[in-house]
Amino acid sequence: MQSLPGFRDIYPEDFQIRRYLLDTWRRVARSYGFREYDAPTLESSAIYEKKNSGGEILSQLYRFTDRGDRDVSLRPEMTPSLARMVAASSNRYRKPIKWFSIANFFRYERQQKGRLREFLQLNCDIFGDSSPAADAELLALTIDILRAFGLGKDDFVLRLSDRNAWLLFLEQNNCPPELAGDFLSVVDKMEREKPEETEEKLRPFGVDLSAVQKFIATDGDGAFAPILDDLAARGLRDFVGPDLGIVRGLAYYTGVVFEVFDRKRQFRAVAGGGRYDHLVKSLSDGNSDLPAIGMGMGDVVLTHFLQSSPTASEKMQSALASDRDCEVFVVVADETKRPDALGLITRLRENGIRADFSFGPAKVGKQFGSAESLGATHAVVVGSEWPEVRVKTLASREEIAVQQDALADLLKNDHSVRP
Amino acid sequence: MQSLPGFRDIYPEDFQIRRYLLDTWRRVARSYGFREYDAPTLESSAIYEKKNSGGEILSQLYRFTDRGDRDVSLRPEMTPSLARMVAASSNRYRKPIKWFSIANFFRYERQQKGRLREFLQLNCDIFGDSSPAADAELLALTIDILRAFGLGKDDFVLRLSDRNAWLLFLEQNNCPPELAGDFLSVVDKMEREKPEETEEKLRPFGVDLSAVQKFIATDGDGAFAPILDDLAARGLRDFVGPDLGIVRGLAYYTGVVFEVFDRKRQFRAVAGGGRYDHLVKSLSDGNSDLPAIGMGMGDVVLTHFLQSSPTASEKMQSALASDRDCEVFVVVADETKRPDALGLITRLRENGIRADFSFGPAKVGKQFGSAESLGATHAVVVGSEWPEVRVKTLASREEIAVQQDALADLLKNDHSVRP
Repeated sequence: MQSLPGFRDIYPEDFQIRRYLLDTWRRVARSYGFREYDAPTLESSAIYEKKNSGGEILSQLYRFTDRGDRDVSLRPEMTPSLARMVAASSNRYRKPIKWFSIANFFRYERQQKGRLREFLQLNCDIFGDSSPAADAELLALTIDILRAFGLGKDDFVLRLSDRNAWLLFLEQNNCPPELAGDFLSVVDKMEREKPEETEEKLRPFGVDLSAVQKFIATDGDGAFAPILDDLAARGLRDFVGPDLGIVRGLAYYTGVVFEVFDRKRQFRAVAGGGRYDHLVKSLSDGNSDLPAIGMGMGDVVLTHFLQSSPTASEKMQSALASDRDCEVFVVVADETKRPDALGLITRLRENGIRADFSFGPAKVGKQFGSAESLGATHAVVVGSEWPEVRVKTLASREEIAVQQDALADLLKNDHSVRP
Repeated sequence: MQSLPGFRDIYPEDFQIRRYLLDTWRRVARSYGFREYDAPTLESSAIYEKKNSGGEILSQLYRFTDRGDRDVSLRPEMTPSLARMVAASSNRYRKPIKWFSIANFFRYERQQKGRLREFLQLNCDIFGDSSPAADAELLALTIDILRAFGLGKDDFVLRLSDRNAWLLFLEQNNCPPELAGDFLSVVDKMEREKPEETEEKLRPFGVDLSAVQKFIATDGDGAFAPILDDLAARGLRDFVGPDLGIVRGLAYYTGVVFEVFDRKRQFRAVAGGGRYDHLVKSLSDGNSDLPAIGMGMGDVVLTHFLQSSPTASEKMQSALASDRDCEVFVVVADETKRPDALGLITRLRENGIRADFSFGPAKVGKQFGSAESLGATHAVVVGSEWPEVRVKTLASREEIAVQQDALADLLKNDHSVRP
C-alpha cells in the first residue's frame, strides 16, 4: 500500500517545514492587509474550460463524473473559483478587495523535479483597482514574502512584463489580435528552444525572430516606470528586472505579468502572476466587472530553493528548532503520586505548554531519556515531596524546587521553553 | 457558475471562524505533545475497501479512474492513510506515537443539516500503547479541545463504550463471532429505530432485544474504571458517561469506542473514535503491528454547536474581534510624501504589523473612513511634518506625534493593536 505517484505522505518532520512555509506566507500576506478565504477542492469542470484557464492545464485535469452525473474536476488552480466568489459578492466588499488563500491543487503532470500531482500554493489577489499602485502592492508582497524567508536580491529576481505591450507590438506588425494567444505561447516557450525552432513557429504570424528579440531588448521603454518608482520608495527596486520575454501560459492574463526566478536559474519559477481584468466579468456573465491582479507561489519549488540558500536554510533551521513538539516532560518518580501528576499535566496543557509524560510506570532515568529524546527543555519531577516539585533545565542540568501550583506560570513566562 | 452542492465558498468572514477552530484544535493537540502530519487528498481506492473502512463510507466515495488508469478515490477519512504511514515508518519513531492532522474529506452524502460533501476534520491518534492510560489520554484530549472552546460539562458528554464487551456478550449468547460486524450495526442503529424493528433485525443472531437492553444497562460493570479513574485525576470525570449503546459504524474498531454529543441532543455526534488494534497490521501485510486509538472531530457540527452555546459563541466572538485584518492605516495627508509613506508601511509590515493604505490620492477624511471601516485600531498620518508622523488611536481619538523611525517599535509593543 503506497501513496499514488506524485502524492506525498507528509511525516511530522516534513510537516514542520510545511508549517514554517505556511506560517510565513500567512504572516506576510496578513501584514499587507490581505484577508484569507478558501474555495472548494472539487469544482464543476466548466469553470476551467478553454476560454478561462486554457492550454496545458486542461489536459492535466483530474476530471470525472460524480455520482450525481456532474462533470467535475479537482481544482488545478485557484483563480477561476476566486473570480466566481468575487463576482458573486463584490457589492458586499469595499474596493480594493485584497484576499489570499493557501490551498492544495491537482495536476496530472509527468513526474519531474519541482512538479508533483498534488501541491500547495499561496494565492494573493487584488480586485477593483487597475492602477500601477495596485500592481506595485502585489509585486511588493511577492518580494517581501521571499525576503521573510531570508532570501535577498542576490538570490532571486522578479521578471516583469506586460501583455499589453505585446498586443501593441502585434498591431504594429499587422498581426490580427485573435492570433495573440497562439503567438504569446510561442514567446512563452522561446527561452527553452533553439532559435531555428522559434523562427519556424513565428512564420504563421508574419513576424521575424529578430523583431521579437529587438522588442524584448527594449525592456518596455520606460512603460514600467510608475511600478518601479513605487517599488523603489519601498526599498524593493533591486529585486525587479523588466523582461518582456515573460508572457505566462494561462489564457486569461491581460496586462502586467511576472515570474520570480532564483538568480542561479537552478529551478523553475518560484512564483508568478499577472493582471486578469476580464475574468470576473466573463465568469459572471457580465453581472460584475472588476479589474484584478494576482500571484501564485507553490510549496515544492520554494522548498528546494530555500534549502539551496545558506541564509534561508539557516533561518528555517532556527525557526524549526525553536518550535518544539514537547516542551516540558513530567517525570513520575513516585507512582502513588501519578494522579497528582495527571492533574499537573492537565494544568500545564491548559496554559498552552506542550507537556508529555510516560503512560505507565518506568524508571526515573528512562523517563529522563524520554524527555531528552522528545526535545523537551525542562523536566518536572513529581515525587514524594509533592506538592513541591523539582524543575530541571535539561540543557544546563540546573534544578530548582517549586510549589506545584506556581509551576504553570513559571514555565509559561520562561523564554527558554518557547522564545 | 456556482460551487457544487455540498461544497463551500469560504469568504473571509467565514474563514475567520475556520481559523479560530483550526488554531484551537492545533493549540490543544500540540499542548498534548501530538505532532502534525498530512497525507494525500487522493488515494488508491483499495485502502478503503471492505475489510478496512466498510459500510456506508464505500457507497459514498468520490471514486474514479485517473489518466494513468488507476482506481482512485478522494479520501473519505484519514485512518487508512495514517495507518499506512505509521506501518511504513514505525521503526523510526519512539512509542507511543502521538500524531494529529487537520484535513479535508469527501463523502457523497445526501444533503442535510450537519453534513457536507467536503468537510474538515481533526484526527488525533496514539500508536504503540494499548493501555487504558493511552485511552484516557486520547479521551482527555477530546474533552480538553471542547473545553478550550468554552464548552463545559453541562454542554456535552463523552459516551464511552467497548466493542470487546459486546464480543463477550455475543459469545455468552452463542452467536458466532463472524456475525459480530452485522450484529453491531444493528446495535448502532437501534437508538434511532422502533423497538419492533430492532427486535426483527436481531432475530437472525438469536439474541433478544431485552437481553441487549439489559446488557447496555450494566454500563460495563466497572470495566471502564481504569480509564475513568485516570480522567478523574485530570478533573475530567464529569464529562464522561459509560454507554454501551455506542458501537460506531466503521468496521475496523476493536476495543474502546466513543462518541461526543451535546447534552441537549440537538446535533449529530460532535466527535467520535475508538481503538483499531489490527489495522496497521492488515494494511502492512503483517510487516508492522501496532495497537492504536484515534478520534475525529469535524468542523460542520462543531460550528453549529459552538454557535448554539452562549459561552462558546461569546468566547469565539471575542477571539474574532481581537484578530484584526487591518491594525494600522497609514493616511497620506501630503501626496509629495507618498514615497516616504510607502517606505514607512514597508517597515511596519516587516515588523509584523498589519498595515494598509489608499493606493491613490484621497481626501484625509475619506482615508480616515477607510481606516475605520477596515477595523484598524490606529491611523498614522504622514504629512508635511515628516519625518515626524501623528499617531491617532481611533477608539479614543487621542493623538501623539512621533519620529517615523520610532513608530514600528511603538506599535509592535502596543497591546491595543494586538492583544
